[in-house]
Amino acid sequence: MADLSRRLAAEALGTAMLVATVVGSGIMADRLSDDVAVSLLGNTIPTGAILFVLITILGPISGAHFNPAVTMVFALRKELETSAILPYVLAQILGGIAGTLIAHAMFELPIFQLSETARTGSAQWTAEAVATFGLLLTILGGLQARPKAVPMLVGLYITAAYWFTASTSFANPAVAIARSLTNTFAGIRPVDLTGFILAQVAGALIAAALATWLFAERRNVNPPLASEGTDRP
Amino acid sequence: MADLSRRLAAEALGTAMLVATVVGSGIMADRLSDDVAVSLLGNTIPTGAILFVLITILGPISGAHFNPAVTMVFALRKELETSAILPYVLAQILGGIAGTLIAHAMFELPIFQLSETARTGSAQWTAEAVATFGLLLTILGGLQARPKAVPMLVGLYITAAYWFTASTSFANPAVAIARSLTNTFAGIRPVDLTGFILAQVAGALIAAALATWLFAERRNVNPPLASEGTDRP
Amino acid sequence: MADLSRRLAAEALGTAMLVATVVGSGIMADRLSDDVAVSLLGNTIPTGAILFVLITILGPISGAHFNPAVTMVFALRKELETSAILPYVLAQILGGIAGTLIAHAMFELPIFQLSETARTGSAQWTAEAVATFGLLLTILGGLQARPKAVPMLVGLYITAAYWFTASTSFANPAVAIARSLTNTFAGIRPVDLTGFILAQVAGALIAAALATWLFAERRNVNPPLASEGTDRP
Amino acid sequence: MADLSRRLAAEALGTAMLVATVVGSGIMADRLSDDVAVSLLGNTIPTGAILFVLITILGPISGAHFNPAVTMVFALRKELETSAILPYVLAQILGGIAGTLIAHAMFELPIFQLSETARTGSAQWTAEAVATFGLLLTILGGLQARPKAVPMLVGLYITAAYWFTASTSFANPAVAIARSLTNTFAGIRPVDLTGFILAQVAGALIAAALATWLFAERRNVNPPLASEGTDRP
Repeated sequence: MADLSRRLAAEALGTAMLVATVVGSGIMADRLSDDVAVSLLGNTIPTGAILFVLITILGPISGAHFNPAVTMVFALRKELETSAILPYVLAQILGGIAGTLIAHAMFELPIFQLSETARTGSAQWTAEAVATFGLLLTILGGLQARPKAVPMLVGLYITAAYWFTASTSFANPAVAIARSLTNTFAGIRPVDLTGFILAQVAGALIAAALATWLFAERRNVNPPLASEGTDRP
Repeated sequence: MADLSRRLAAEALGTAMLVATVVGSGIMADRLSDDVAVSLLGNTIPTGAILFVLITILGPISGAHFNPAVTMVFALRKELETSAILPYVLAQILGGIAGTLIAHAMFELPIFQLSETARTGSAQWTAEAVATFGLLLTILGGLQARPKAVPMLVGLYITAAYWFTASTSFANPAVAIARSLTNTFAGIRPVDLTGFILAQVAGALIAAALATWLFAERRNVNPPLASEGTDRP
Repeated sequence: MADLSRRLAAEALGTAMLVATVVGSGIMADRLSDDVAVSLLGNTIPTGAILFVLITILGPISGAHFNPAVTMVFALRKELETSAILPYVLAQILGGIAGTLIAHAMFELPIFQLSETARTGSAQWTAEAVATFGLLLTILGGLQARPKAVPMLVGLYITAAYWFTASTSFANPAVAIARSLTNTFAGIRPVDLTGFILAQVAGALIAAALATWLFAERRNVNPPLASEGTDRP
Repeated sequence: MADLSRRLAAEALGTAMLVATVVGSGIMADRLSDDVAVSLLGNTIPTGAILFVLITILGPISGAHFNPAVTMVFALRKELETSAILPYVLAQILGGIAGTLIAHAMFELPIFQLSETARTGSAQWTAEAVATFGLLLTILGGLQARPKAVPMLVGLYITAAYWFTASTSFANPAVAIARSLTNTFAGIRPVDLTGFILAQVAGALIAAALATWLFAERRNVNPPLASEGTDRP
């Protein structure tokens, strides 16, 4: 296992680059287009792409959580030592905030901002719960079915979730906090954070419970669309 | 083999998430853009992405059919036990309907709706037959040539079929039924279901017959663009 | 080796589905948008996606050429028996034409058409030569470096070439002939075919000559970005 | 190891095709759309796609640097012989310039141009440093974690970086020089090259230093999102 300092550096660096991508591509896309769907495409494609990159290169060091909800579920599953939980979450939150600040610096915007974008109400909370449920199911199912595909699975899951959830799928408390500090395309009002984070935690816990049953003792069935065997020679 | 309850849960859950993506991203894309091609991109990319995810993580449990036409073909090929056919199809239909309702909840729309979008006539039926023919050929050919690529093959096939078929490629009776219950971008009038489903079944059967001949006793040819061997060392 | 009848069926079927995608998605994209770049995106993404699918599932049967320029190069390299050349090319041409007709049927257009879109002149011919040069280099280099990646390589190469060549990269005589029979987004005037096909053949021959030198006796170098070894354990 | 002449040919050819794609798709996208975000999508997707192709097919010959900043870092790491540094960089610069000229020829533009697009100031330089930092981190981390994924990692990293950096991520001195010779979408004023190149070198050196610590002596941790083991059977 890598020593804790490198693991925390990987969590902070990965969350920073993830947030810089989410916020930066949101600014770029919003500036360049009057069509909000085009802007969302310009926000979605980079986010999915960078997730593949970051999880692939940093996964072997820290597990590439970048997300307190993911860290929480791994701790509950006894797959992360208890003493690492708080440092992981702090590294994610601080890294995420740094990502927002870097995006502002690159786009010549005031470094410190507070978002004024309202994202609240039961429909939004439902969306966040669904989004985080799906994210954890993707991770836990992917680790069971095909671990090497997890970076691609998470990247493509978030690509989809940006569009099928009404909240554009934050699905990550650390990223939500970082996004409250930018008054741009990707922002969320600080006052709306509590509802989002509670919904995310709820979605993650439901997924963890379901996964324990659904992905346990898996054996091959016929006919599998996604065979786990090797390609036929 | 996973027990039947988990297999049915996987079929219902997978079809629900697939339909929530199709319907939800359709609503999102339609709201955000006046350019229908942009909206279709915002509907296509999430659908292809989520198919890769769902087939990868749920394939080892249930086979990841999510589609009565696929279940029918596997049953005809004796690769699914007869007693599982009806439960599979019911799980798919109920899961699909749940997906529509969840999408409505997330987007603050009336939960129960009926589509008013007309999709009928011989050109549309031809399109659905072609779409489902291609889907089954992709699955059966992929299982023969490179089983681990099936999630990617299905995701990319549907990505293409959304655009090259005039019907945007439903290619799935359970998804068609679920989409009749939303009066949004992805909807289809309930009265048009019969034509769509018959065309889908016809396309699937033609593909199954062709595949039996085309993909039988395959051996290597030279020069293969898609070598089945391992990468050269 | 699969018997010749199945190989020819694979070539015809693959070229038909490729052309149906190119022509069909062009019609769909053109109808739905006033922004030509959006239409080209709606034409590009499906084409790249279906190439991955078709080469993966049909490659083991026929080699998945779908392209007389590719067949010509493999014949020159003695990797295709001489007696198969003419049947392959005929299957590709007839399959391609069928693809155009199927697209017209699905979109309720007159089945038989002639394109009126002018595509001629030295800049267009340069573009076609460059496009086909790059395609053959991709195939021959990919077969040497990583055969299992060829379907993805060809799909992504064409995705790029649609945009970086002024001709939108036909790069395929059979597809060019089929596209002369549709007066829609993807069409080309029949009178312009000769220039396109000659340029394509020239580009293919130059790539074949270069590849013989460039990809011969390849051994590992340090530091390889694209290692051919297995992932490290 | 391939002989030096082939390695240099691969570097020149690869950089030429990369620049032809960047410049050519920029011209195409800019001509076809009034929406700059759509144009950037039409520039981004081809660039990411061609990077996957070029690194896959040319990586085994030359390492597929295509970038003096990458060559510099490999030389510092003693993974490239000193005598090859200057030839590599010259091949990249000359290849890149050829790529710009080929793009102009294909699009019937004056072959020799100078860009008038201003790209300067501390925000742009910060963006270039961040972009090149991320590129080198992706390459060095990818080589450590999963060498076969490097072509996909670089393609997707650049896909993201086009959007999250205010400079659209040149991240490559040879490509920057080549882009100074086109007064089109992708151009940069020659006078602005110095600032860009210095920022790129700075970002690359910081990444190299960080990588030496972060990616050293890596061992498995639990729970890894990106497992390095084989898929479970």
